[in-house]
Amino acid sequence: MDAVTLADLPLREDLRGRTPYGAPQLEVPVRLNTNENPYPPPAELVADVTEAVREVAAGLHRYPDRDAVALRQDLAAYLAGSTGVALTERNLWAANGSNEVLQQILQAFGGPGRTALGFEPSYSMHPIIAAGTRTDWVPAPRRADFSLDTEAAARIVTEAAPDVVFLTSPNNPTGGSIPLPELEKVLRAAPGIVVVDEAYAEFSSRPSAVTLLERYPAKLIVSRTMSKAFAFAGGRLGYLAAAPAVVDALQLVRLPYHLSLLTQAAARAAVRHAEATLASVAKLAAERDRVAEALAGFGFTPVPSDANFILFGRFAHARAVWQSYLDAGVLIRDVGIEGHLRVTVGTPEENDTFLEVSKDVASTEVRG
Amino acid sequence: MDAVTLADLPLREDLRGRTPYGAPQLEVPVRLNTNENPYPPPAELVADVTEAVREVAAGLHRYPDRDAVALRQDLAAYLAGSTGVALTERNLWAANGSNEVLQQILQAFGGPGRTALGFEPSYSMHPIIAAGTRTDWVPAPRRADFSLDTEAAARIVTEAAPDVVFLTSPNNPTGGSIPLPELEKVLRAAPGIVVVDEAYAEFSSRPSAVTLLERYPAKLIVSRTMSKAFAFAGGRLGYLAAAPAVVDALQLVRLPYHLSLLTQAAARAAVRHAEATLASVAKLAAERDRVAEALAGFGFTPVPSDANFILFGRFAHARAVWQSYLDAGVLIRDVGIEGHLRVTVGTPEENDTFLEVSKDVASTEVRG
Repeated sequence: MDAVTLADLPLREDLRGRTPYGAPQLEVPVRLNTNENPYPPPAELVADVTEAVREVAAGLHRYPDRDAVALRQDLAAYLAGSTGVALTERNLWAANGSNEVLQQILQAFGGPGRTALGFEPSYSMHPIIAAGTRTDWVPAPRRADFSLDTEAAARIVTEAAPDVVFLTSPNNPTGGSIPLPELEKVLRAAPGIVVVDEAYAEFSSRPSAVTLLERYPAKLIVSRTMSKAFAFAGGRLGYLAAAPAVVDALQLVRLPYHLSLLTQAAARAAVRHAEATLASVAKLAAERDRVAEALAGFGFTPVPSDANFILFGRFAHARAVWQSYLDAGVLIRDVGIEGHLRVTVGTPEENDTFLEVSKDVASTEVRG
Repeated sequence: MDAVTLADLPLREDLRGRTPYGAPQLEVPVRLNTNENPYPPPAELVADVTEAVREVAAGLHRYPDRDAVALRQDLAAYLAGSTGVALTERNLWAANGSNEVLQQILQAFGGPGRTALGFEPSYSMHPIIAAGTRTDWVPAPRRADFSLDTEAAARIVTEAAPDVVFLTSPNNPTGGSIPLPELEKVLRAAPGIVVVDEAYAEFSSRPSAVTLLERYPAKLIVSRTMSKAFAFAGGRLGYLAAAPAVVDALQLVRLPYHLSLLTQAAARAAVRHAEATLASVAKLAAERDRVAEALAGFGFTPVPSDANFILFGRFAHARAVWQSYLDAGVLIRDVGIEGHLRVTVGTPEENDTFLEVSKDVASTEVRG
């Protein structure tokens, strides 16, 4: 069986020559490459997740609630509490990570013969999921400083008339967020669906686009994740808020029983601990500002960030600098933006280590 | 937001008018509608799953192993042990239920401009997943008794030249399985990928198609699930065995981190208990034969089954008969085959209740 290679298989042409998406998963002392929350779940949360699993495990031989109603109720309560918008489980949908949520959105509203548009650089899974659902991807630009020119964006959206627009706020991997009045310019211009990807929303002080749902119920979808501020990357739980009709649409394309009994139980336990978990957000925001200031002090150019990571430059050879960090035991991310690297905000100790290495890098590397 | 309806949304045209897939999830005393294993996980398995979750939960803030290597090693060892075929993790792939495995297969080898062929009636998710991946579905017939005429099937496959062929053995919802020499006729005729869906393989005494992988490494994929014999429907774990190159291909389309830390840990715990869990298989097979015999005694026509369910008829009005069972507290499945219903084999007590109701049904319903 080992003699067969990819070239021997009837793979789709558009997949030939591609490599799987994903950051290197390396065992190093300081991992600051995937924007996780560096604080482990508190003991109470571990105990609660474990207890929740024990309670449901005797029913593992049965399929889970296909509609995950209780979890969606809990997520609605959390999001209503943090945004002030009246939401019920009918406004909420959840899947195995926001990637699956986004895939379902494109299965329902994108697909062959349809287009999705995003402002690059942004979350690199958007075009990958578009490709996976055979949705034509339309890349649109940001300003040279990576901020979004919403006047220009609205014009582009009007002209291109994409079926789906992605707006990422705060934007990954650049960190900036979009004020709601600015975001509305693009919303008004969009002829179809607008997905506001708020994976990092908890780290930003701006109000959530959830507050715009009442005004744009037939086009706005706000996606969220428990992988970042919620410190639940391992639990794989993404969700969205939208009009109930959007949730109805996604139920036409979701795989039945996509969310396991354990995922539903564990995510509910994690939501119950939201207050304790999200207490780390303020600490991380303060650390982010400290790290950005220190980087600037070393002569780097950090991009202003509203999230739990910082894109910084400029480097003549970003890949070589990335390797220097790794050699010093610090894993950061080469996101493919020329002259730049991205670092996740870690614990104060991790950030200190990162800054020590950065100081060395600053003194030895040629900057672009 | 409630004023917006599906008709107001830019839904894909091919989804309009559809309803979500899924059997009714009703709380009734006897649930024999989704082919679950009726025996709850033993206390040791519950304890082990719980302990496994406790051990990993402190790392929930980190992304899980994207490649699920340890789980794939465990599944390879289980499958190698039960089939006698030398397999490693490079031959194994896993996802959130076999539905996601099948979706990934069609994303890699199907999709727009490609075709998938299946012999109907069969697992109804095959055409649905084809639609979800925009793969054209080619329905092909079975004999009137629901068995597969493999000579005719090979001719159809040669003529239609589909990119992907689905062979379900044992077949759901009809129950029969395909002898390997018969299956090979279709394998030889197929120009592309052949997926042998063995969701119910543990209930059959026939050898697995896994034993054919060495001979057809560039076209054969054998899919499996832990939802049936393994009594792990709530855990959502499907997997497949194939040549390593096939696994490489699927990694080009899988969403990154699709399997949660909890799913990986819990499934590994469940595989450790395979022997105890699968001890129920012999009991269920014996009960299946008892139920089929009793149904025949009542004047019904059960289709010979190699799985943990029985398709039986004939009814003039299957839907009305289904309701009669439900009114008596027994939930079985109307799978949309005229004149027939499907019952899952339950515990002896559940089967007794089902047979009592069947006796009443036999005496009152007009049969077709």
